[in-house]
Amino acid sequence: MSVQSTRRSFLKGGGLAAAGAAVAGLVPARGAAADTVPVETVTSDVAVVGAGLAGLTTARRLAAAGHDVVVLEARDRVGGRTLNHDIGNGHVAEAGGEFVGPTQDRIVALAGEVGIGTFDEYDTGNDVYVNGGLRLKYSDSGLLGSLLGTAPPDPRLLVDIAHLSQTIDSMAKKIPLDAPWTAANADRYDAETLETWVRANSLNANGILALLSPFMEALVGAEPRDLSFLFVLAYVAGAGNATTPGTLERLFNVRNGAQQSRIVGGSQQISINVADALGSAVRLSTPVRSISQSDTGVVVTSDLVTVNAQRVVVAVPPALAARIDYDPLLPAARDQLTQRLAMGALMKVEAVYPTPFWRSNKLTGQFLTTSGPVGYGFDNSPQDGSLGVLAGFVGGAQNLTWGPKSPAERQAAVLQQYATMFKDDRFLNPISYFDMDWTTEQWSRGGPTALFGPGTLVGYGPSLRAPVGRIHWAGTETSDYWAGYMDGAVRSGERAAAEVGALL
Amino acid sequence: MSVQSTRRSFLKGGGLAAAGAAVAGLVPARGAAADTVPVETVTSDVAVVGAGLAGLTTARRLAAAGHDVVVLEARDRVGGRTLNHDIGNGHVAEAGGEFVGPTQDRIVALAGEVGIGTFDEYDTGNDVYVNGGLRLKYSDSGLLGSLLGTAPPDPRLLVDIAHLSQTIDSMAKKIPLDAPWTAANADRYDAETLETWVRANSLNANGILALLSPFMEALVGAEPRDLSFLFVLAYVAGAGNATTPGTLERLFNVRNGAQQSRIVGGSQQISINVADALGSAVRLSTPVRSISQSDTGVVVTSDLVTVNAQRVVVAVPPALAARIDYDPLLPAARDQLTQRLAMGALMKVEAVYPTPFWRSNKLTGQFLTTSGPVGYGFDNSPQDGSLGVLAGFVGGAQNLTWGPKSPAERQAAVLQQYATMFKDDRFLNPISYFDMDWTTEQWSRGGPTALFGPGTLVGYGPSLRAPVGRIHWAGTETSDYWAGYMDGAVRSGERAAAEVGALL
Repeated sequence: MSVQSTRRSFLKGGGLAAAGAAVAGLVPARGAAADTVPVETVTSDVAVVGAGLAGLTTARRLAAAGHDVVVLEARDRVGGRTLNHDIGNGHVAEAGGEFVGPTQDRIVALAGEVGIGTFDEYDTGNDVYVNGGLRLKYSDSGLLGSLLGTAPPDPRLLVDIAHLSQTIDSMAKKIPLDAPWTAANADRYDAETLETWVRANSLNANGILALLSPFMEALVGAEPRDLSFLFVLAYVAGAGNATTPGTLERLFNVRNGAQQSRIVGGSQQISINVADALGSAVRLSTPVRSISQSDTGVVVTSDLVTVNAQRVVVAVPPALAARIDYDPLLPAARDQLTQRLAMGALMKVEAVYPTPFWRSNKLTGQFLTTSGPVGYGFDNSPQDGSLGVLAGFVGGAQNLTWGPKSPAERQAAVLQQYATMFKDDRFLNPISYFDMDWTTEQWSRGGPTALFGPGTLVGYGPSLRAPVGRIHWAGTETSDYWAGYMDGAVRSGERAAAEVGALL
Repeated sequence: MSVQSTRRSFLKGGGLAAAGAAVAGLVPARGAAADTVPVETVTSDVAVVGAGLAGLTTARRLAAAGHDVVVLEARDRVGGRTLNHDIGNGHVAEAGGEFVGPTQDRIVALAGEVGIGTFDEYDTGNDVYVNGGLRLKYSDSGLLGSLLGTAPPDPRLLVDIAHLSQTIDSMAKKIPLDAPWTAANADRYDAETLETWVRANSLNANGILALLSPFMEALVGAEPRDLSFLFVLAYVAGAGNATTPGTLERLFNVRNGAQQSRIVGGSQQISINVADALGSAVRLSTPVRSISQSDTGVVVTSDLVTVNAQRVVVAVPPALAARIDYDPLLPAARDQLTQRLAMGALMKVEAVYPTPFWRSNKLTGQFLTTSGPVGYGFDNSPQDGSLGVLAGFVGGAQNLTWGPKSPAERQAAVLQQYATMFKDDRFLNPISYFDMDWTTEQWSRGGPTALFGPGTLVGYGPSLRAPVGRIHWAGTETSDYWAGYMDGAVRSGERAAAEVGALL
């Protein structure tokens, strides 16, 4: 893996003084990585576990309200599932989450607060669609685009696409995002998979499923068979905000959709700037191992720092929250929930070229294909177009196939796919290539988000956000709107900070 | 929780000499429970994680073949998901797994080897069935019984029960148990839940699902909506052995089924006897925290003991195996598998009476009801009938409802259910009552077994048993036949011992 973390100023900062945290003593080392390092004990109002967007937003909000806060991060960097990768010439390409779009108000607001703007994703020209023997080039900005958005105008699937997306949008409107398990017919929707629902509601079910596979692989790192239909409805309902209902189109569109804009300097820069403002309150390379709580407070133990606090906000994915030791044990329903919430299987691959040469062929760089490894991809070039970057997702079943192969094998397969798909051999010769398989990341265990299989929301959903004594939960999975996205992470942090702030 | 572990002789034994394991040194304490206790380092051929039936069988087999072995157990007792509970008068009742039946050859053989026999589950008289307003008493040994086994002769469901169970049996015959994901149509079966399959294949789907709910709650601690249909087929296929195909009837029957016989002295006694024979090679109260492997061996670190070994067999449920730190990290597919394998939600409740008074009313004590908390129950009296014990399961959705309530509230509800269901107020006044909620057990996280939701077998099944370098996997979930049962645990231990033994 050639991806490296961006170094930050406060990484080199000494001491532990920000936000009033005080060094209180030394206790013996705990945890494998810290056998020989003395562990600091600090006191704070709130401990935050995880320095991704959720944890950092929580800490930023609490600090702004005058509370002491310490953020404990397992990695040697901040940003969680966002990660800038240096592609040279002063540019970065994102190895993780990167896009923002309409109704994603909170991530855009946070970016603005720390001096970071956005720019439009390149979207001029035609997308490419390959499905078996069919190859189409089409624009999402003409008449068809206004009807279908970014969805491909495959004549065999047009009627189903229009019908299914209209049906899903209308069903999603009836899902209460604060409690999807209370929706009418929630039991029925949560008893079936996206695949069985599509089979029961499509004219050309096999065709739709073949198309849905690369789309869901890119969207959530999973196959239609893996997902509860209620979860899919909630995911669509979440693609909006309090005043604008979510739609399927907003999930998959560039123009007016979730892929509309990018972050100047790369999405990880938002976390870096927030962390810089928090200074030495953010502690890196210190995985949290245990959380104990009593009537008077919590003790959060990590490899390098033990925090005595009033409350703790756990802002890591459910599968990681499950690996922390809790004393007393969490309620069984919460533990069972986290046993059920696997992370998606997602890899992002990026090929860097001297120029975005496809633009001169009137191609946007976007594609959707049933002939992976890469099912969906897009132009990820720097804003000034001084380099050409094509990014793509290898998710779900494709991730299982391609993840274990050697980087060289993957690179060869991906570039050959591009050359064939775009009918252009220039794709075979990038300046550089890198990929990032989030399933191999110890402190993410997959991406982009946790998946809900059948039965999970109806059975265990109420434990997703409910505080357990002095333990509160953040992370994009706990958001109402845009769960699974950077915007959801920020929303969850804002909610957690408000929840905790009211109790301090 | 009033359940206590049975104390064993070797618990009090000193030293660490059995099977040639040698005290090699002291290293600093690791793990929360061991801050002040020096950690022993020992050397052995094989380390085994978990002293349930799987781990103990592994160790017993390896020791018999002349290999050094050390078993590391997190609890202060052996037996895993089996647990004897003292009910007085020298008798025990099982708080966990207890039955054995035809084709469960391996657990019966192991019991015999350590001097433990079986006796028949009491099955004379009528079972009771309650479904809404309908209440039936019926025998499973007459003509109907030979047709339906223990399944209730509900006239509204008779045709469906006969049709569905015949269909499932015939489909199950085509599932290759060493690789269910390779079965014909595996993709389709693994894309749907048991609920959607039943809806598509029943005349009275809602009626069948209402009946299946308490049945699946007792069988696997889950609802029909939670389970991949492929998993259900594999579970049925596994209810047999190499010469006798599995059937649904064998899963739910007493006579000629998985509930036919009980273990003299209680099922945990098998583990206790096996552990006694292993002596001080079995180390209690020492949760394994990390496993590192290199070209030359493994280092298994637990709270009290660090083992340097050639190989390690991890014989704990997948959800617990996921909480161990591995260095290097496990392959992503294996990690993703364990993220997906939640444990069932199961509680066992037991009411102890002066006599099994229901027997004189020509009742077996067995019941199946849609009016829980207890969906399925049975006579669990000692073999000599000197006490009356009624045992029942509170699983799946019922477990979610009743688990968080107070023991007193649960007891009142369970006893009132019994009195109403059997129309006999004597059930209101037990000598004693206890329940055991396996979802609250730190070192099981649920029961009776791990659940496969849609997509898991087809996507991640191949990682279930595949060794990762020097790490091998046991546990009932990894068995071909009787996965989820004591017999599957023993089979998995035998397989793991053979696998490792061939490499030493």
